[in-house]
Amino acid sequence: MTENISAVLIGKKPTMNYVLACITFFHGGAKEVSIKARGRSISRAIDVAEVVRHRFLPDVRIKRIGIGTDQFQPHDQDEGFQGSATTNVSTIEITLMR
Amino acid sequence: MTENISAVLIGKKPTMNYVLACITFFHGGAKEVSIKARGRSISRAIDVAEVVRHRFLPDVRIKRIGIGTDQFQPHDQDEGFQGSATTNVSTIEITLMR
Repeated sequence: MTENISAVLIGKKPTMNYVLACITFFHGGAKEVSIKARGRSISRAIDVAEVVRHRFLPDVRIKRIGIGTDQFQPHDQDEGFQGSATTNVSTIEITLMR
Repeated sequence: MTENISAVLIGKKPTMNYVLACITFFHGGAKEVSIKARGRSISRAIDVAEVVRHRFLPDVRIKRIGIGTDQFQPHDQDEGFQGSATTNVSTIEITLMR
């Protein structure tokens, strides 16, 4: 689905780590970089996009912002017991292009 | 700017409070409802949009998602001392329409 799109998955590391990852992709010739995050990391994903655009690469534009929901079983190992208790987590995907 | 658009500002209350606010606006005849959040509340804003769409109002669509940065002085009262230390906080605005 995202063959030629470089992706940065946002976790719990400092924002600047992910900013650097994006900049590295763009400096390596990428035309688009996709920033993906789930749950609490979503606000950090937006921080990353904003810092990349405003502080480092002013020619980068936001191509698309998509939101969605991931469903998963909290404990896949002990199914049957909590089989029906699915957890929903929101997701975001911010596609930057230059 | 947002004359006829009902706005829900996301804070630290439970997600369902804001979901109810959105549903109330739509049931009151609103064609568009704007969900706004800053910083850590951003992930809750996306939760609200997703719950409204998937659980309560399937005819509601995402019209636009915008992200931005708000700058402010952390301590406006004692300026001069920390005058130059501006803080950046990311913002999101999700416009739902039906």
